[in-house]
Amino acid sequence: MVYDLIVVGGGPAGITAGIYAARQKLNALLITKNFGGQMARKAVAIENYPGFEKISGLELIQKFKSHLKKQKIDIEEATVSKIKKIGGIFSVSTGNKKQFKSKTVIISSGSDPRPLEVPGEKKFIGKGVSYCTACDAPFYVGKDVAVIGGGNAGFEAAIALSSWSKKIYILEHNSKIRADEIIQEKVKATGKIEIITDAVLKKIQGENFVNSLIYQDNKLKKNKTLKIEGVFVEIGSQPATSFVKGLVDFNEKDEIVVNPKTGETKTKGLFAAGDVSDIIYKQIVIAAGEGAKTVFSISNYLQKNGWD
Amino acid sequence: MVYDLIVVGGGPAGITAGIYAARQKLNALLITKNFGGQMARKAVAIENYPGFEKISGLELIQKFKSHLKKQKIDIEEATVSKIKKIGGIFSVSTGNKKQFKSKTVIISSGSDPRPLEVPGEKKFIGKGVSYCTACDAPFYVGKDVAVIGGGNAGFEAAIALSSWSKKIYILEHNSKIRADEIIQEKVKATGKIEIITDAVLKKIQGENFVNSLIYQDNKLKKNKTLKIEGVFVEIGSQPATSFVKGLVDFNEKDEIVVNPKTGETKTKGLFAAGDVSDIIYKQIVIAAGEGAKTVFSISNYLQKNGWD
Repeated sequence: MVYDLIVVGGGPAGITAGIYAARQKLNALLITKNFGGQMARKAVAIENYPGFEKISGLELIQKFKSHLKKQKIDIEEATVSKIKKIGGIFSVSTGNKKQFKSKTVIISSGSDPRPLEVPGEKKFIGKGVSYCTACDAPFYVGKDVAVIGGGNAGFEAAIALSSWSKKIYILEHNSKIRADEIIQEKVKATGKIEIITDAVLKKIQGENFVNSLIYQDNKLKKNKTLKIEGVFVEIGSQPATSFVKGLVDFNEKDEIVVNPKTGETKTKGLFAAGDVSDIIYKQIVIAAGEGAKTVFSISNYLQKNGWD
Repeated sequence: MVYDLIVVGGGPAGITAGIYAARQKLNALLITKNFGGQMARKAVAIENYPGFEKISGLELIQKFKSHLKKQKIDIEEATVSKIKKIGGIFSVSTGNKKQFKSKTVIISSGSDPRPLEVPGEKKFIGKGVSYCTACDAPFYVGKDVAVIGGGNAGFEAAIALSSWSKKIYILEHNSKIRADEIIQEKVKATGKIEIITDAVLKKIQGENFVNSLIYQDNKLKKNKTLKIEGVFVEIGSQPATSFVKGLVDFNEKDEIVVNPKTGETKTKGLFAAGDVSDIIYKQIVIAAGEGAKTVFSISNYLQKNGWD
């Protein structure tokens, strides 16, 4: 069978695309390894998705997911390993060794946390090094921890940790922090968070578990040690696109270049939406909007190609 | 006082822009004559705003509105009559004779229903001619009515009317109807709706109230009369932009031309988002996403201009 559309990804863009595709009666399949995308990694309550004044990431995922599951759409829980285009038809291979065929594809696979790439990071994954504060914060009750990254995500992670941990350090390699003022104020209000700027992480160390980190103080040009038992990595993300190389162009951030009005990539029939694309701002409501937009483009595309 | 941002409009784009502006600590004012925009005109339940499987337009408006009102933002309930840029500052005049100043403006004033422009239309507004099925359907219990327009909005209006009216005609001037299949099926299921294609409305007539309409059957090239007591106009909409002429470019649909990545118009500091802009697809979640996107652009713009 050849689908009209395969949606790759189960974050806000992918789920919205799935809802819209089903309502437009496209014969569609959504493939994702899990649901939530950027929603799953929100460390604090979401207060900026219009219609919900305050909702946890998990609750919003549940609402999106059950909205999707009400629709007539096939769902495959798997990773996508490769997409090829052969004779005008896309072939999508998954990690569980299946193959699906489709006339069109939306890549909305979002992004993965960017790793630190310092000694000790890989060794201590799950043993003090975490890429998901929302998931792991409760393991650090009464402990001292560090968040790496002074943007909104880092500050939000620190706020979430303040409910559990004793003391939280935020390390930012720039001399200026980049978090929104409203979030900076919340950080201050906890009374538990210390911000260290000009701090370049050098090493994570420990025995079985993390017990400290070393950073260079860029003003003094001197290494310093912080005794902490957890390192939360919040230095941004990288688009999840390895399976689609060759079919699309990437910008300098490795995001897929799309026509911002339609979601088209350089390959006919292949579209991208949400955080994986070069749409500048990464927000749940923006990704959702792009997912909807792209399905309309696809309906037009299928009609023009006599496939309707 | 000079605001950082004035948002013009209270639909999904404007409300989302207001929420985001407040959360970014912009000193902002939102001016709108009423809340809801495209949500207010939905004749049937909304099933495609992610997170809500099924919600009435009015309920969703309430949720958006109360979300907005939780934020620190000034709100002025008025129409905007004119926007000028003088010495780098925007001056926004309202119908209630006030003037507000701001460094930036987002136009998210949405669109108004497009009028039929046939004899009798103006005479019978409120006396059988309606531009808002959601508002007026309950006045037509047991009556025969006509919906003008065979797109999704027209079909949805007919479905909504089927709860109240006896018989509903949908008049479409093309020979093909344009509504989505899922909606066409719902229309069929009512058993009360008759679709007339190739029908060009010529005249609305009556005494104190509408009692009939005349249309030309384009296949037979012959005028026909339909006895109906209500005419619901669903032939699309036109962007609400009269107050901003000269500052922006318009496309062939009179929509404001924007940079689709940022919402910028040709005038520095003046942005547009939602249905008023030339973003192709008109959906609540798309408009909301564009509203959020545009506020990020404005934060960047204010920072670059040393206004932060």
